[in-house]
Amino acid sequence: MLTRLKTFLIGSPLPTQELGEAKLNKLHALAAFSPDALSSIAYANQEIFLGLVVAGSAGLALTKPIGIAITTLLVVVALSYYQTIHAYPSGGGSYVVARRNLGRIPGLTAAAALMIGYLLTAAVSLTASVEAIASAFPVLWPYRIPVALAFLVLITLANLRGQRETGALMSIPVYLFLGTYLSMLLYGGIKLLVTGPVPTDAIAVPAVLPAAQPLTLAIVLRAFASGCTALTGIEAISNGVPAFKSPESKNAGKTLLAMAVLMAVLFVGSVWLTQSFAVVAGPDETILSALAHRLLGRGLLYGVIQVATMLILAVAANTSFAGFPRLAQILAHEGYLPRQLMALGDRLVYANGIGALAIATAVLIILFGGDTHALVPLFAVGVFLAFTLSQSGMVVHWLRERGRGWGLKAILNGLGALATGVTVLIVGVSKFVEGAWITIILIPLLVLLFGEIHKYYRQLSEALSSEPATPGPIPTARPRIVIPISGINRATGGALSFAQAITHDVTALYIEIEPGTGAPLRKQWEEQWPGIPLVVRPSPYRTILRPLLEFLDEIDAERNDGQLAAVILAEFVPGKWWQNLLHNHTAGLIRSALLYRRRYMGYQRAIIDIPIHLN
Amino acid sequence: MLTRLKTFLIGSPLPTQELGEAKLNKLHALAAFSPDALSSIAYANQEIFLGLVVAGSAGLALTKPIGIAITTLLVVVALSYYQTIHAYPSGGGSYVVARRNLGRIPGLTAAAALMIGYLLTAAVSLTASVEAIASAFPVLWPYRIPVALAFLVLITLANLRGQRETGALMSIPVYLFLGTYLSMLLYGGIKLLVTGPVPTDAIAVPAVLPAAQPLTLAIVLRAFASGCTALTGIEAISNGVPAFKSPESKNAGKTLLAMAVLMAVLFVGSVWLTQSFAVVAGPDETILSALAHRLLGRGLLYGVIQVATMLILAVAANTSFAGFPRLAQILAHEGYLPRQLMALGDRLVYANGIGALAIATAVLIILFGGDTHALVPLFAVGVFLAFTLSQSGMVVHWLRERGRGWGLKAILNGLGALATGVTVLIVGVSKFVEGAWITIILIPLLVLLFGEIHKYYRQLSEALSSEPATPGPIPTARPRIVIPISGINRATGGALSFAQAITHDVTALYIEIEPGTGAPLRKQWEEQWPGIPLVVRPSPYRTILRPLLEFLDEIDAERNDGQLAAVILAEFVPGKWWQNLLHNHTAGLIRSALLYRRRYMGYQRAIIDIPIHLN
Repeated sequence: MLTRLKTFLIGSPLPTQELGEAKLNKLHALAAFSPDALSSIAYANQEIFLGLVVAGSAGLALTKPIGIAITTLLVVVALSYYQTIHAYPSGGGSYVVARRNLGRIPGLTAAAALMIGYLLTAAVSLTASVEAIASAFPVLWPYRIPVALAFLVLITLANLRGQRETGALMSIPVYLFLGTYLSMLLYGGIKLLVTGPVPTDAIAVPAVLPAAQPLTLAIVLRAFASGCTALTGIEAISNGVPAFKSPESKNAGKTLLAMAVLMAVLFVGSVWLTQSFAVVAGPDETILSALAHRLLGRGLLYGVIQVATMLILAVAANTSFAGFPRLAQILAHEGYLPRQLMALGDRLVYANGIGALAIATAVLIILFGGDTHALVPLFAVGVFLAFTLSQSGMVVHWLRERGRGWGLKAILNGLGALATGVTVLIVGVSKFVEGAWITIILIPLLVLLFGEIHKYYRQLSEALSSEPATPGPIPTARPRIVIPISGINRATGGALSFAQAITHDVTALYIEIEPGTGAPLRKQWEEQWPGIPLVVRPSPYRTILRPLLEFLDEIDAERNDGQLAAVILAEFVPGKWWQNLLHNHTAGLIRSALLYRRRYMGYQRAIIDIPIHLN
Repeated sequence: MLTRLKTFLIGSPLPTQELGEAKLNKLHALAAFSPDALSSIAYANQEIFLGLVVAGSAGLALTKPIGIAITTLLVVVALSYYQTIHAYPSGGGSYVVARRNLGRIPGLTAAAALMIGYLLTAAVSLTASVEAIASAFPVLWPYRIPVALAFLVLITLANLRGQRETGALMSIPVYLFLGTYLSMLLYGGIKLLVTGPVPTDAIAVPAVLPAAQPLTLAIVLRAFASGCTALTGIEAISNGVPAFKSPESKNAGKTLLAMAVLMAVLFVGSVWLTQSFAVVAGPDETILSALAHRLLGRGLLYGVIQVATMLILAVAANTSFAGFPRLAQILAHEGYLPRQLMALGDRLVYANGIGALAIATAVLIILFGGDTHALVPLFAVGVFLAFTLSQSGMVVHWLRERGRGWGLKAILNGLGALATGVTVLIVGVSKFVEGAWITIILIPLLVLLFGEIHKYYRQLSEALSSEPATPGPIPTARPRIVIPISGINRATGGALSFAQAITHDVTALYIEIEPGTGAPLRKQWEEQWPGIPLVVRPSPYRTILRPLLEFLDEIDAERNDGQLAAVILAEFVPGKWWQNLLHNHTAGLIRSALLYRRRYMGYQRAIIDIPIHLN
């Protein structure tokens, strides 16, 4: 039944050989990887506006220069990742570049920063989109958390269904958003040419906003730092190169360039039009909504634009689902994360990574009660730190490789590293008290965790190969076996049959929990199995485990023969799951105790389960 | 560490031989078993007042007759349970009496009714007491659920610590309540003698209460039904006879009589004084508080009375903790509940029953958001149904036994059965829509569940003894063994060593999840263990289980030799718990699949665990 539910939800398993066919074409890949980057553009404009409006019209006059600075940064970062995709076609983006060229710590730092970024993006964009929807339909306001979780489940299921299915689903909101916004910008551009811009001093800062402060460098830098969120999501494609159809690097590179051009057009276009038409927004409206209102009135077209904005926000989390599992798989492959994250699921996606991201996102949404605004300042520091490390890594890469045009490429990446590095400092300082400090603490902790995991896997692999893999001398004697019994019944008979088939050295052990039950049992035993010794041990504290472990220790010490040892446990297996509730599960308890609590004087003690099927 | 926390919370384990010393003397037993009965008295008066006040002073004039009727019922029920205690000294109260004399269904019905009653008592009394406390200290109002859960944890821990510890702890609130209330009643009685009663027509029904309705039979019966809650908790001692010091029945009987006398004095005294002094209560005050106010003013003495009332309410849940686990143990002993409920815990109490009650109570408190008033009407039907069944059972008992004075005893119990039976009808009808129907549905469902559990245990015991318990013919051949391997390493070596020590028929099986890994593995294998066949199976859907189970089926079918079969699983056991997260747990998955998913063509397949300890 569970299998059928799973098949219904995500489809039937796909064979490994279909891996090639499950890959993404460029249009679907753009839809799967870009939602976060495109929606970032939608609110970066807003962030710049809010950052500058505190300084009144003098502040807002700086919107265009800041927009140009951010667009330049976008071009530099995009070109850098384009080079990364070709230099490291197996994916991994910032992590792989930093790891290969700068070393382990910078690599893991980039990875930690990006993983935190992906997680925050998923939680923040889901709750932000639900807030936008609930603002439009206030009846949904009390159900923000369930609605956000429903979106999360939808995106998770789509991603579990497969890459192509996700790409096809994401095409709807992504291309709707692109189509409507580009049309609006085109229309606005023509209108601007025809009517000319509104004079700057005509900007009327709404009275409801706080009174204008003098324009300081701090205000400008903070507005720039806020606007830098426009760039988040740009690195996702470089993490997922193997998801593209062959030739992977070429297709991924083209998709990245297309995405960067779209981002630049959307960003510059919306900033330019906002500024040229002197659009300002009141406290209850976003700047993009105000722009659409100004250009299109309040009719159907305006409604379509609003719906498209909501939809792109709602699926922005998909970028995380496209990037996170692939990054996690690469880290797991190199031993820095649990190896379960490497497993290809039924539908040829990294299902465990998708599941881990979904659970962590759900926890964040619930913990923050559906209001994740507090998490927004945490983003940018991490993301730009990853950008900086990745660009610096590329500089080292070119210095080593010295291929065609390496000088120019190195200079480009160097400039990128410098620009993004300065941005890290600006964002880190200007957003420090707002929460950037959390990221700054979290990243080193994650890097430490990666290191611990890696150490464990290294020790594990050493431990597994430390002994010669040959079977060694085959023990001359057969194992000595202890059978804990609870009475004389079919289970006892089954355990004894098996024991006698493999050895002649069998001892039965009865732990007498209820005083006085041992003597009659011994009498019956000696009649039925006179050849097999039965040991009865009291248990004044009514526990099975302690007397059993003590007995095993005693015979190990007594025999001291280096012989193989085993315990046989007869385990009842009921026909229906609920019947398990009616059993004591003593066998399970004993097994855990034998496995985890004790290391026996160097004896390797096997545990032999004899399932007793009931029904 | 867990062990130390447990020892800190509930004390170190006690040996079984101290069972006698852990029993309760009469004073402590009264404290442990009576809180619910005593606190019921405290609010039964209130319930009668609220039931009659709707009919104005004509209604309130009936308080005394209804009080006398309920007191008579109390005497009859108490005497009946007194006889039960002597007739069935092993405890079990209503269940045992009904089971032995009326049959299985009446017995289980009584048990189900009482178990529901105990659970509801625990939840309702905890939340009611917290509401009373939060009314006095409004700062606590938003924290009603955590405070109620904290009380629950406290009572649970006390009961887990042991019977004597619980009795000692409960003595404080119980004897404080008894001391202060009896003193107040004595003072009121003297005052009444000196001043004489207030004339009935002087009763001023407060204007805030709803306008008087005509006095109907329905109002009288409903007031009587509500007042019957005074009797809940009276049966608890009969469930717990073995908890008393020897001679158990005698001590339990005396304690029951003492409790009944105290209940009667408290109930009659408070009803009489309330009525005689024409005390009425406004909507924000309880009738007992109004009485105390009238007698003692608003000074220190009044405060002490209020604190004593809160405390007795807060510990009323203890009656459930005294009664429920013992009843559950008796049912488990007879195979109607999971046998885990029979186990004596570290401190010689039925710890699993205590834990089950605590969890169920916590769930109820949380589900109802700390407001369990809705559950109050559910009580009385079940409790009085149990009373009726128990009394009827006693009638049959006397008719069978015909000991000294059997006729009188039978008549007494017959009267009791009649009276409580009529009460069941009154309560059931008058409270039907308020929630009594839930109990009426729940009881048969519980009885069905008991029956299913009993059927399973009977089948289990038949299945266990169905085969002759002799080991049967010892199989001539040793088992054939399959070892699933994930590669060539120390684990493989360990598994092979053990296999070769017990048989010569070993096959290794490699499931090729990543295509192409099988061939190089085979090459290495054939160099290292040329004598042992290695089978490589592809797994196009990347699952270990399906190809493994198919292979096992195939060799079973191919050999068809009736031979013992086994699978050896090498299981990694990391040194620290968190390292378990870094393993795939394939061995555990395989074990579950072998245990639960498959019945192999009649083969008994053992599962042999070879723990590979890491560190």
